[in-house]
Amino acid sequence: MKISARNQLKGTIVEITKGATTAHVRLDVGGTIVTSAITNAAVEELKLAVGQQAYAVVKASDVMIAID
Amino acid sequence: MKISARNQLKGTIVEITKGATTAHVRLDVGGTIVTSAITNAAVEELKLAVGQQAYAVVKASDVMIAID
Amino acid sequence: MKISARNQLKGTIVEITKGATTAHVRLDVGGTIVTSAITNAAVEELKLAVGQQAYAVVKASDVMIAID
Amino acid sequence: MKISARNQLKGTIVEITKGATTAHVRLDVGGTIVTSAITNAAVEELKLAVGQQAYAVVKASDVMIAID
Amino acid sequence: MKISARNQLKGTIVEITKGATTAHVRLDVGGTIVTSAITNAAVEELKLAVGQQAYAVVKASDVMIAID
Amino acid sequence: MKISARNQLKGTIVEITKGATTAHVRLDVGGTIVTSAITNAAVEELKLAVGQQAYAVVKASDVMIAID
Repeated sequence: MKISARNQLKGTIVEITKGATTAHVRLDVGGTIVTSAITNAAVEELKLAVGQQAYAVVKASDVMIAID
Repeated sequence: MKISARNQLKGTIVEITKGATTAHVRLDVGGTIVTSAITNAAVEELKLAVGQQAYAVVKASDVMIAID
Repeated sequence: MKISARNQLKGTIVEITKGATTAHVRLDVGGTIVTSAITNAAVEELKLAVGQQAYAVVKASDVMIAID
Repeated sequence: MKISARNQLKGTIVEITKGATTAHVRLDVGGTIVTSAITNAAVEELKLAVGQQAYAVVKASDVMIAID
Repeated sequence: MKISARNQLKGTIVEITKGATTAHVRLDVGGTIVTSAITNAAVEELKLAVGQQAYAVVKASDVMIAID
Repeated sequence: MKISARNQLKGTIVEITKGATTAHVRLDVGGTIVTSAITNAAVEELKLAVGQQAYAVVKASDVMIAID
């Protein structure tokens, strides 16, 4: 499957924390940690595990720009 | 200002394309291009320019995970 | 690629309207029209065309519930 | 109330799972299951219940397009 | 229609700017201006006009918190 | 830090409810309550507390318009 989302950052899963319904998955993307909040169901269906290669996927309209 | 958004990726602005109301701002974040769609008004107010240091800011709930 | 987004609705592209930077892509999903706003760049990269089979993909945290 | 969100898919609630703060509500929309993550508070205020008719509401800018 | 979105701020439309596909609608909510980016199609279908009473509607998961 | 998000509503934190992974933070913005769903980690990192001044920050593309 190819998706329209402009940002697909390749990394390695370094932490998965399941909550009651929402899980936090953290990826190391070239030394930067990216945090994702997805459903527990998605974690299970994709069989996500620490150490696995994965992508952080973000739609361009969900990216803001900040300056110092 | 400090913001709750979990993902604040430092980079350099490499391209700004203004549309009729929506602009696309592209950052080089450690060699990866991140694309952001924001309002033209934000580009002007923050005086964004190519070559400038900036952050791509993304709320954790807007990050999905994909696998090959 | 498999993605964590819980909603992947299969349909047929019935209309593509490009704007200055943002395109609107409409899918017929089992008789219901679903409207998506994505970048022109995504339309071009995925070579989207009317008549093509495609999926409308939505993260669960972007779905609200309404009642009459 | 009429809302600007382009996508308002009519269906029937088939499952409600409350978490600590976030609930998952699943609708059957013409045979397809749509999953929504909303607050527990919203579930209570709207008195959502399995078997009830409801709409999955999604803003166009939150819909991505994918192809096989 | 009642919707699960936790934030429904009543105000008055003070400006509508249509782009090629995306419109910006600005509301005065108790003296504060709130800016919304929606489709031109939504502006037309809801017959939005300056001076009209309307609500800015935001899902709780799209609200971040910042501090000075 | 200055951010592109068009909506930065100043208020006072009136309630913080932590869940397993997701917290709900409520602000009083000029008499209106605004609800935000963010990560527990963000609440801790920003040391958010009831009574504190804070901003509800929302990207324009996450604001819908509704009418009666």
